[in-house]
Amino acid sequence: MSRPVILSSPDSIAERPQPFFDLRMKMHVAARQVEDMLEQVLPKPAGLHKRVHEAMRYAIFAGGKRLRPFLVLSCANLFGVESPRSLRVAAAIEALHTYSLIHDDLPCMDDDDLRRGRPTTHVAFDEATAVLAGDALLTIAFEILSEPATHPSADVRCRLVAELAKAAGSAGMVGGQMIDMEAVEHPLGYQETVALQRMKTGALFEFCCEAGPILAQASQNDYERLRNYARDFGLLFQITDDLLDAVGTVESAGKAVAKDREQGKATLVSILGVEGARQEAATLARWNPMARMPRICGIFLYSFLIATLRTFDWPKKRIS
Amino acid sequence: MSRPVILSSPDSIAERPQPFFDLRMKMHVAARQVEDMLEQVLPKPAGLHKRVHEAMRYAIFAGGKRLRPFLVLSCANLFGVESPRSLRVAAAIEALHTYSLIHDDLPCMDDDDLRRGRPTTHVAFDEATAVLAGDALLTIAFEILSEPATHPSADVRCRLVAELAKAAGSAGMVGGQMIDMEAVEHPLGYQETVALQRMKTGALFEFCCEAGPILAQASQNDYERLRNYARDFGLLFQITDDLLDAVGTVESAGKAVAKDREQGKATLVSILGVEGARQEAATLARWNPMARMPRICGIFLYSFLIATLRTFDWPKKRIS
Repeated sequence: MSRPVILSSPDSIAERPQPFFDLRMKMHVAARQVEDMLEQVLPKPAGLHKRVHEAMRYAIFAGGKRLRPFLVLSCANLFGVESPRSLRVAAAIEALHTYSLIHDDLPCMDDDDLRRGRPTTHVAFDEATAVLAGDALLTIAFEILSEPATHPSADVRCRLVAELAKAAGSAGMVGGQMIDMEAVEHPLGYQETVALQRMKTGALFEFCCEAGPILAQASQNDYERLRNYARDFGLLFQITDDLLDAVGTVESAGKAVAKDREQGKATLVSILGVEGARQEAATLARWNPMARMPRICGIFLYSFLIATLRTFDWPKKRIS
Repeated sequence: MSRPVILSSPDSIAERPQPFFDLRMKMHVAARQVEDMLEQVLPKPAGLHKRVHEAMRYAIFAGGKRLRPFLVLSCANLFGVESPRSLRVAAAIEALHTYSLIHDDLPCMDDDDLRRGRPTTHVAFDEATAVLAGDALLTIAFEILSEPATHPSADVRCRLVAELAKAAGSAGMVGGQMIDMEAVEHPLGYQETVALQRMKTGALFEFCCEAGPILAQASQNDYERLRNYARDFGLLFQITDDLLDAVGTVESAGKAVAKDREQGKATLVSILGVEGARQEAATLARWNPMARMPRICGIFLYSFLIATLRTFDWPKKRIS
């Protein structure tokens, strides 16, 4: 194979081997740590309103991969950020991500009954409770970030709040979701679909990767580079998700599939075709020797993660 | 009439007359200022996702009384806070309040078609857009608070974010809404109903009144006193709202009425009776010579506001 090409960091290649199982182990350990933190920061079911606490916990403790928290922790680790701080940010982002899943699954939105192989929150509880649990998880994300335990500097905490709000709001995730709803009636072209995905899922990935340099009060340059990495990662993630929807099974995806096609939504897969989308993903991940995409499951996401995070050893050297 | 009794501030009575029309004029001027600020901070409808911007604006520019912003501005004014700062907090709280109305009106929640005399957001747009517009308004509230234009001190901004998140989340407004949904099947007693209202509407009123001393970096004592004032005010407000629902008309309320009775919900009015609730309100507002409650419309709220805000001239004197 030819010399790997680094899209986001052309001048920072490290060739240390890092086996796949090591990443899976790291993700597993990180997921446990994040779940411990979530256990601490989320309210225990109590009081006359305990049903909303139960729904929040039902949705968040559903055995997710905790990919976004892992991105937060990995990127923060590059700068030597203390783990209680990055774990709090990771918990906040997982709360916010979970809110978006609960609301997206509602009957008036994507109308999904299954999520991570279990009944969705509005099925397990009811629609009103699901709406409220989503609202509460969105709200607590900002509460977690704003508290002194997240970082001693209030400037850092405020920047985290501001960036997460931008990523999650109408200029980011919510705006992307709006375009996605509209796309049923007005199919989009390639560039529009890329723009939609950058808002709908990419903006939150960007926040995950930016949180590390923000917590470390790193240079603007470091910050920009991790943001660029996040953009490539986000697009690759979305192609995988679209491929899962197009050619996966309910078992492999852990949720309903073929929804996009049924709803007539334009996705990168419907525009480029399955093979074209795979090639686009391969182009994004082509510097990664493991990115052979033998199957459409998450494996090349993890490979991408290995390859690209490896190239980001440079900030650690710069900081230490 | 005997000497007025001040519940929240027993040692700070000022007897200056302040006519009712003056308050109405002040509220009108404040509402215009807050709407100008909302115009600045809310996104203009643009892009493929402009529908969510339109829905956010439809819901927020609906001719509301802007009572919560007025509380923010009035309490901040006691401490001489610069108005661009308090106006930003007022805009944030109005965005958050509007989100709660949009979500509460959804078919799966209170299922209301009418709000402020107009079709509710999910009727004027659709349910999915209403959910998203609510999510975006909740999110932008935290974005507004976290930005340096709100206050030069990041500590102050972080405290605002933290307090608003607590007031709006599962320990506050959302928790109260959850209890309210459950109350259809499990009618509550008086104390439980008071606790519910303190969470559902009172917590946000508390934030409105606390924001001033937070912006002014006032003493804990000043902060506590305004919080106590807000508690009384919130309870009085809720009794008015329940009375409007019980004996008002669609025209006087600007929204559907008799919903609580139809749903079999316990309210302070259903527990105390209409006369009992009026007397409870009179007790709360009894130091106010204007609080004769000749009718159940908002007049005694405003009177309450006059009487109690007047008693809070002391912090201004203390600060200047």
